[in-house]
Amino acid sequence: MALIVQKYGGSSVAGAERIRSVAKRIAQAKDRGDKVVVVVSAMGDTTDELIKLAYQITSRPDDRELDMLLSTGELVSCTLLAMALRDMGYEAISLSGAQAGIRTDAAYSRARILKVVPKRVFRELDEGKIVIVAGFQGITDEMDVTTLGRGGSDTTAVALAASLKAEGCQVYTDVEGVYTADPRLVPEAQRLSEIGYEEMLELATYGARVMHPRAVELGELHNIPILVASSFNDNPGTLIHGGVSMEVRNKVRSVTYDLDVAKITVVGVPDRPGVAAALFEPLAKANIDVDTIVQNASINNATDLTFTVARSQMARALEVVKPIADSIGARECISDAKLGKVSIIGTGMQNTPGYAARMFSALGEKGINIQLISTSEIRITCIIDEGKVKDAVRALHQAFELEKAK
Amino acid sequence: MALIVQKYGGSSVAGAERIRSVAKRIAQAKDRGDKVVVVVSAMGDTTDELIKLAYQITSRPDDRELDMLLSTGELVSCTLLAMALRDMGYEAISLSGAQAGIRTDAAYSRARILKVVPKRVFRELDEGKIVIVAGFQGITDEMDVTTLGRGGSDTTAVALAASLKAEGCQVYTDVEGVYTADPRLVPEAQRLSEIGYEEMLELATYGARVMHPRAVELGELHNIPILVASSFNDNPGTLIHGGVSMEVRNKVRSVTYDLDVAKITVVGVPDRPGVAAALFEPLAKANIDVDTIVQNASINNATDLTFTVARSQMARALEVVKPIADSIGARECISDAKLGKVSIIGTGMQNTPGYAARMFSALGEKGINIQLISTSEIRITCIIDEGKVKDAVRALHQAFELEKAK
Repeated sequence: MALIVQKYGGSSVAGAERIRSVAKRIAQAKDRGDKVVVVVSAMGDTTDELIKLAYQITSRPDDRELDMLLSTGELVSCTLLAMALRDMGYEAISLSGAQAGIRTDAAYSRARILKVVPKRVFRELDEGKIVIVAGFQGITDEMDVTTLGRGGSDTTAVALAASLKAEGCQVYTDVEGVYTADPRLVPEAQRLSEIGYEEMLELATYGARVMHPRAVELGELHNIPILVASSFNDNPGTLIHGGVSMEVRNKVRSVTYDLDVAKITVVGVPDRPGVAAALFEPLAKANIDVDTIVQNASINNATDLTFTVARSQMARALEVVKPIADSIGARECISDAKLGKVSIIGTGMQNTPGYAARMFSALGEKGINIQLISTSEIRITCIIDEGKVKDAVRALHQAFELEKAK
Repeated sequence: MALIVQKYGGSSVAGAERIRSVAKRIAQAKDRGDKVVVVVSAMGDTTDELIKLAYQITSRPDDRELDMLLSTGELVSCTLLAMALRDMGYEAISLSGAQAGIRTDAAYSRARILKVVPKRVFRELDEGKIVIVAGFQGITDEMDVTTLGRGGSDTTAVALAASLKAEGCQVYTDVEGVYTADPRLVPEAQRLSEIGYEEMLELATYGARVMHPRAVELGELHNIPILVASSFNDNPGTLIHGGVSMEVRNKVRSVTYDLDVAKITVVGVPDRPGVAAALFEPLAKANIDVDTIVQNASINNATDLTFTVARSQMARALEVVKPIADSIGARECISDAKLGKVSIIGTGMQNTPGYAARMFSALGEKGINIQLISTSEIRITCIIDEGKVKDAVRALHQAFELEKAK
């Protein structure tokens, strides 16, 4: 008898009919003899609607209050799911984040799980119940309700799987798994049957929306195999785990893209120590997430410093950077919000030359100009014109023969 | 500096604009220098909508799950109200029933408050905050969320006022206080400036919808003065308290009515001991709330036994009663669902003859036939045809000169 943790996303429980259909899937797992813990997100657009409600009251909702407000979304879906299972004759019980022992710090709206105290979960499992846990939420030592921020419910599921020593975590969502590229862009894109944690981490960070990097990281840390599959059919999905075979590792695994890219270049920065810190420390303090940073070679003791941010943060980033640029004697600040990025990812690129060259030439052949390049050990990212991103994804999928992947 | 507890009902917080307007009223109390604790119901129809959602999933929602589901309604309204106050520059914090220390038994959907542990409430008040508590909910020793059933938020408010040793409890609602009769029926009805607990208890039980009897009872027990007033204007309202002056007690205070009355008569019941118990114990076990019971004088060793129930319970009551009536040898069961009741209430009736006679003759003059009569020390109730109820209320209001009341 295995213990498994399943997670269902918001679109999987949007409405009574879908909740009943999810209940049937959970019942199947129970019928196979497994102990089942289920983590569930808020139904459909609930979270957005609650946020809208808050903004009808105030333009700056307090973080603590907003977290308690948003936490109700998952309470609603988890109680309804428990009711649906009970209606089918299964013993089921819903638990709030607090009841499930999800203990977090007090960083409202982006709380971190400090520990899971799964006493109640174990007790209910021992009584033969299916346990339905409200995702995305936890509780502080002061009994204040927190939410975990983006990727929260996935993180709840993986954290629970780790603390319950579950056999695995199954994340059911509205896609069928991890693909060699977005199938809406590349019809010949292939579903990957398995992928390693590291590759998945890069994929998640660089545009694949299947899972939040945070949950993948936690899975890697505790070595929890995570199955990503559709909640709407029984196709096999993709298994994210640590034991991916050597042969599979030896390739580019997937092409990802992201259209939410803006670029700021500080032109003519005096080339002396401390200048970069002077720019990026204030950005960090202003909570602006700087992505790629590139500094060009110095000419005449002056250099150009370019970095990218999410589009929604460009205006604020410019506000922070312009006065600093003036004070350090830079020539000017220029910005461009109409950019995108395209990445190839795969552990096979590690210590193997040729991938970058093949990527650049594939883009060049399509007349796509590369504005910035950034790399990790297992990823190469090019920042290009937003209008060229889709062509680039298709060209790279073809260049690396990903239609043959599996 | 006084400590006061205010309570706002669902219609008072239905929508962003009303929430902001309630926030202004709370701010006024804070500006007067008081420590303020606010109990709030769910917005408008939220609770009904959540119940509807549950019934889309199952025709028999589990009580525990339903309670957790319904508790989200008050979490939403209390966080929004806290946000509105913060937006106006006031320090405010929302607390769930659990956080506010409302400890109940585990009788889901109709839990009783066992005790209030107001440590957190006191701490927040000491920090100068306005504390907004989610009404209608509590928590068991097992950390399971319960709801208090009908009159729940009023009960939360009075219980908090008692445990905080507040100066008083102010219940703001969509009516302007307690009247000598329903002003929609009787235009000359007068608002009472004060009323005693006992009278209010009878009023609440016999049709006045202003406050639930349960909250009034708790107020009497702990001697908490309860002000009932409108949340939409600054009119003075009605003070429910124990120290009502002798002179005021010496009168009929109010005429109430209730249209939700059905009558069942078991005809020809053998007149022997144990027969009444044989009928009413099974009704109690079936959770059917029997109101008035009348047994006529015995003729030829057989008697007629009549009782009333809410209309929605008549069919079930008949199902329970019919086989028993057969088994004890009664002649037949007859029922009538189209009844209403009208009551006059006032401590002035105590030990004072003449009120009953005046009531019956006032009804008789209007050609209204009385079907059943029941009395308490401070109340006389007549059960009459549903179609005659409004006429009866007007006739009684006039007969007892309540247009002169205050």
